[in-house]
Amino acid sequence: MGNCFFRGTKNTNVRISLPAVCFVWQIAMIVLFGVFIRYDEESDAHWHEFKKEHNITSDIENDFYFRYPSFQDVHVMIFVGFGFLMTFLKRYSFGAVGFNFLIASFGIQWALLMQGWFHALDPQTGKITIGVESLINADFCVAGCLIAYGALLGKVSPVQLLVVTLFGVTLFAVEEYIILTLLHCRDAGGSMVIHAFGGYYGLAISWVLYRPNLNQSKRLNGSVYHSDVFAMIGTLFLWMFWPSFNSAITDHGDGQHRAAINTYLALASSVLTAVAISSVSQKKGKLDMVHIQNSTLAGGVAMGTAAEFMISPYGSLIVGFCCGIISTFGYLYVTPFLEKHLKLQDTCGVHNLHAVPGMLGGFIGAIVAAAATEAVYSKQGLINTFDFEGAFADRTPGTQGGFQAAGTCVAIAFGIVGGGLVGLVLKAPIWGDPADDNCYDDEVYWEVPEEDESIPPILESESNFSVEQS
Amino acid sequence: MGNCFFRGTKNTNVRISLPAVCFVWQIAMIVLFGVFIRYDEESDAHWHEFKKEHNITSDIENDFYFRYPSFQDVHVMIFVGFGFLMTFLKRYSFGAVGFNFLIASFGIQWALLMQGWFHALDPQTGKITIGVESLINADFCVAGCLIAYGALLGKVSPVQLLVVTLFGVTLFAVEEYIILTLLHCRDAGGSMVIHAFGGYYGLAISWVLYRPNLNQSKRLNGSVYHSDVFAMIGTLFLWMFWPSFNSAITDHGDGQHRAAINTYLALASSVLTAVAISSVSQKKGKLDMVHIQNSTLAGGVAMGTAAEFMISPYGSLIVGFCCGIISTFGYLYVTPFLEKHLKLQDTCGVHNLHAVPGMLGGFIGAIVAAAATEAVYSKQGLINTFDFEGAFADRTPGTQGGFQAAGTCVAIAFGIVGGGLVGLVLKAPIWGDPADDNCYDDEVYWEVPEEDESIPPILESESNFSVEQS
Amino acid sequence: MGNCFFRGTKNTNVRISLPAVCFVWQIAMIVLFGVFIRYDEESDAHWHEFKKEHNITSDIENDFYFRYPSFQDVHVMIFVGFGFLMTFLKRYSFGAVGFNFLIASFGIQWALLMQGWFHALDPQTGKITIGVESLINADFCVAGCLIAYGALLGKVSPVQLLVVTLFGVTLFAVEEYIILTLLHCRDAGGSMVIHAFGGYYGLAISWVLYRPNLNQSKRLNGSVYHSDVFAMIGTLFLWMFWPSFNSAITDHGDGQHRAAINTYLALASSVLTAVAISSVSQKKGKLDMVHIQNSTLAGGVAMGTAAEFMISPYGSLIVGFCCGIISTFGYLYVTPFLEKHLKLQDTCGVHNLHAVPGMLGGFIGAIVAAAATEAVYSKQGLINTFDFEGAFADRTPGTQGGFQAAGTCVAIAFGIVGGGLVGLVLKAPIWGDPADDNCYDDEVYWEVPEEDESIPPILESESNFSVEQS
Repeated sequence: MGNCFFRGTKNTNVRISLPAVCFVWQIAMIVLFGVFIRYDEESDAHWHEFKKEHNITSDIENDFYFRYPSFQDVHVMIFVGFGFLMTFLKRYSFGAVGFNFLIASFGIQWALLMQGWFHALDPQTGKITIGVESLINADFCVAGCLIAYGALLGKVSPVQLLVVTLFGVTLFAVEEYIILTLLHCRDAGGSMVIHAFGGYYGLAISWVLYRPNLNQSKRLNGSVYHSDVFAMIGTLFLWMFWPSFNSAITDHGDGQHRAAINTYLALASSVLTAVAISSVSQKKGKLDMVHIQNSTLAGGVAMGTAAEFMISPYGSLIVGFCCGIISTFGYLYVTPFLEKHLKLQDTCGVHNLHAVPGMLGGFIGAIVAAAATEAVYSKQGLINTFDFEGAFADRTPGTQGGFQAAGTCVAIAFGIVGGGLVGLVLKAPIWGDPADDNCYDDEVYWEVPEEDESIPPILESESNFSVEQS
Repeated sequence: MGNCFFRGTKNTNVRISLPAVCFVWQIAMIVLFGVFIRYDEESDAHWHEFKKEHNITSDIENDFYFRYPSFQDVHVMIFVGFGFLMTFLKRYSFGAVGFNFLIASFGIQWALLMQGWFHALDPQTGKITIGVESLINADFCVAGCLIAYGALLGKVSPVQLLVVTLFGVTLFAVEEYIILTLLHCRDAGGSMVIHAFGGYYGLAISWVLYRPNLNQSKRLNGSVYHSDVFAMIGTLFLWMFWPSFNSAITDHGDGQHRAAINTYLALASSVLTAVAISSVSQKKGKLDMVHIQNSTLAGGVAMGTAAEFMISPYGSLIVGFCCGIISTFGYLYVTPFLEKHLKLQDTCGVHNLHAVPGMLGGFIGAIVAAAATEAVYSKQGLINTFDFEGAFADRTPGTQGGFQAAGTCVAIAFGIVGGGLVGLVLKAPIWGDPADDNCYDDEVYWEVPEEDESIPPILESESNFSVEQS
Repeated sequence: MGNCFFRGTKNTNVRISLPAVCFVWQIAMIVLFGVFIRYDEESDAHWHEFKKEHNITSDIENDFYFRYPSFQDVHVMIFVGFGFLMTFLKRYSFGAVGFNFLIASFGIQWALLMQGWFHALDPQTGKITIGVESLINADFCVAGCLIAYGALLGKVSPVQLLVVTLFGVTLFAVEEYIILTLLHCRDAGGSMVIHAFGGYYGLAISWVLYRPNLNQSKRLNGSVYHSDVFAMIGTLFLWMFWPSFNSAITDHGDGQHRAAINTYLALASSVLTAVAISSVSQKKGKLDMVHIQNSTLAGGVAMGTAAEFMISPYGSLIVGFCCGIISTFGYLYVTPFLEKHLKLQDTCGVHNLHAVPGMLGGFIGAIVAAAATEAVYSKQGLINTFDFEGAFADRTPGTQGGFQAAGTCVAIAFGIVGGGLVGLVLKAPIWGDPADDNCYDDEVYWEVPEEDESIPPILESESNFSVEQS
């Protein structure tokens, strides 16, 4: 079709830069993995020795069987969930699902290294050992960058996305180290470290990359009927597997069990309030697919920290209730406000789905932690849930709550400052991003099939024939 | 586009009623959960004490690890399976997948309460305790209402669907209590309690809501090419995960294992006979997507009761063989007959996919139970499989078969009578349902994107230009 | 629409043959299952006795809990993964996903019998016993035939596909017996027995069925925008669940754990090099969906043999790196070359996704096996990983490597020779295949909805009206 040639004045050719970055990066990964990464005890062929040493009687106690089903659910969320959620634009489905695929595959490798250096480096051997929990954490880490992509969708080149991912994963590993290790916060489902960080990271980048003439691409900034149905695939796989997301790396036993229940409930509650606000906001009471696709998920985001705590089932419902409302209001009023007054263009509305619910989730976690008592958790339960062991044996729930709140602020700060700096890097005119009148268009970076062929030629010529006759 | 304004003469504005019902309902849920619902021993922070008391050596014996993978599969069936199966209509995909999402989220909360009061209420504390099995049961309970939605698809308002769900879940909990507890039937995959009940419930409602002039919406009562492909997503996720559905709450060990194998086989067999009947029924031997999307699933429905029994692998194949044929014949001959002569409008043909195969599944279960012997099951195996313990220690397989058959009748009776009554409630002119010439149309309850924009404006104006020139 | 009647001169009516084959076959399956197939110890109601005899303390040690989550992932790959991957053609999505469904359902039953006779026949009772591992193996076996379907897509009738499957499963069981039992190779993810065999089997059939005038169907041999998005559903579910595919039947414990990690890494690496080569091969650096849909998976295929070995994480990355490149080059240069000079028409390019990466995977496995040492595996780990027990207790890693290489050659030979013979059978003019100008068209075997109805009639008449006026 080539109509992009009429429009864009920018050079969007990435024929050198994209392959170069992919190749250099992948080769670097191979070298660094060769130097640093090894199997852990549970995935190494020496596992039978480990079993004997630790009096483990059955292979079923290998961590693989505790976490692999959840890992696969998380994996689906990362690749199908995030990917398809962004296919709603009428002409950016290839970019949504394809670039999501690219940056996630790129990011998980770097995440294994970065998170390994911070969390799993054996000081004696100088090696990082990995197992199924590392894979889940790598997927989590990349989720932060995919959230950021949501704010940038349609406005950046794949090379820019790889830069966003490279720095995003790096920043993630550092803030995660500060929050989880230094501040000793609990954040199993990542309200703070994934959603608040990722959301503000994307928003800050988008703010720096503000495009004053973006309305020149307005014709493509919307959905068509079937692209909205595709997006529901993403929504539903995220929604259904969110209990696995929030429980994937929590404690074995009651920890995983409780996190799944709490998330299930919060999500159900979000759906009802998102529908209610969507309907009441429109003259005829009609529902808006944007809200159904996004705000229904807010309860899962907001339970990322508190899901493993004893928030109680009705507490989970309340969290979902409030966040469904807040998120839908965000789509209705805050996103337009931010765009108009703060020059913040947020394609998927990650502000309402990730940044704000993630921040709220962090503070909800702080409150629930501060309110923890021995009566509810039992003495040992409190120790298990909050890891009050070693250097942190003396910490009280109240103190823990304070640290949780501090952790949320750290995540937001990393997102905003990091995103601002990365945004400046991306302003350089070397990355192949599209012109303002050429955004949201797969034509720029993809071979797009010609659409008119969907009608078989014979019919076409028939109708041509009849037209000519008339 | 707004062409709905030319047509419907009914008031379909749900701007007050839909948000009101959602809000009132969700607040009621929060209050009732606060009063009644707590974590069970395996999801509570006191789990470590429970472990010690019961000499459980490893966290892996938490019920979470027995059932969570199956739970997630069931969850996918409820939200993606049922939702996408109904996207086949050309202009009702938003309603199919969106209202399915709404009523399932609404129903699972009410189901946890209703099923809890009947099955898990601690008489001492007055509390219901929930774990992963409760979540599966809540999903099951909602499945009955989603089946009913299949008969009503495109003809009712979302508010009516919430009423259908409210009463449907309530009726479900009562009939389930009668069938599983009082009659002591086995029905792990719910041929009776889910499919027969849900199918007849939906049919009875649809019969009461008969629309004599529905052919005024005929133009929209059909599929387009891509909507049929979307529906196959639903079909396949239902088909693939049905072994999990039928095994999710069966006995640990051989019970779950056998139920999965039996269901896998019955489903494979259904596919072949559904294809055969579909092809033979058409002059040119062409296949009809309606049959492939639906009748291939009949084997799973019909194995809902017998899957956990020792029906033997070839027995499972026979069940699938017969039900694939019966279901496809139903789509070919029974649905048109019912519509013409019994004034029963069944959009998705739930009669052929759920009502009849569910009923047959109930009776198959009765026969297989009655034929059970100690030689096949072993003495202890018989006790384990049929729960011949406590008050039921003396029951023989023959008696059990009788009760299973009685249970099937109870499920059907509840469906028909309950559905009739709910249908009368829904006839009130207050629910915002569409007019007869306005059915099967997403425009009524959804903001639908304008379709012509799928062709970029510049091309359009070019072609307009050439048209003007000619 | 019926425009197929203007074109095809062949008789594509399958109204007799398709139902006949389905019925005869399904009845034969019922009889053979009745004679041969029983539950194994872990799915039989006597499991409680087996537990006692083998001192198994918990039901969680039933093989069901080790393998069922992986089984379900594999099941999704077979039905959604393979099915949707082939929906990319603009007018063959029904055939892609529907015939995939048919032949997989048909094949898994025959596979349970064929694999059972070769691997699980109890010589005393004359019975085959099945459990969850048998279901996985049946899915694997059918995968070979679905791969072959990829080479034939759009050019054969469903009856021909059933013949391909009947012989394909039979050949598979024999070559698998030779490779795994006689040669004692390891091939848990089936680089050799599934991918190399299946790929060459399909290519050989396609070569025999060469259509010199296939360019008469050129108008339909391509994608439209949304069909490419549908195909990405297939790609992603294959990609995400491939770690389960390669680990589903490996050793409990470290075997499954390691296989999942290795496959995860190889796949991530494939994505980056597939993107790089796709971009660099096009003048403007634009990506081609064909490469993203297919070549990103090459790393998973190539790890089918070596995934359970101690290939080390960076070794996995290298495998993915190379195979992503080779596969993309295949789509760019080899497929066109084969079509032009070898008269080999390969619709989905299975040569580049399965045949070559599968063959490479076999040889990679041979090299990694030959390089195995006690230092890396431990003495017992070597025995566990390579099953150096019983008659094979004396085998060294070096010898094992030689046998692995020989096994790869056996798989390829079976594919080519078997495919050639089956192709000759399919040349008979009795199978209802489409004419050269009628390929890639769902109209031939499916009731296809009329497309123009996607625009509501009222709008249509409006626009007709305006046309008439002008």
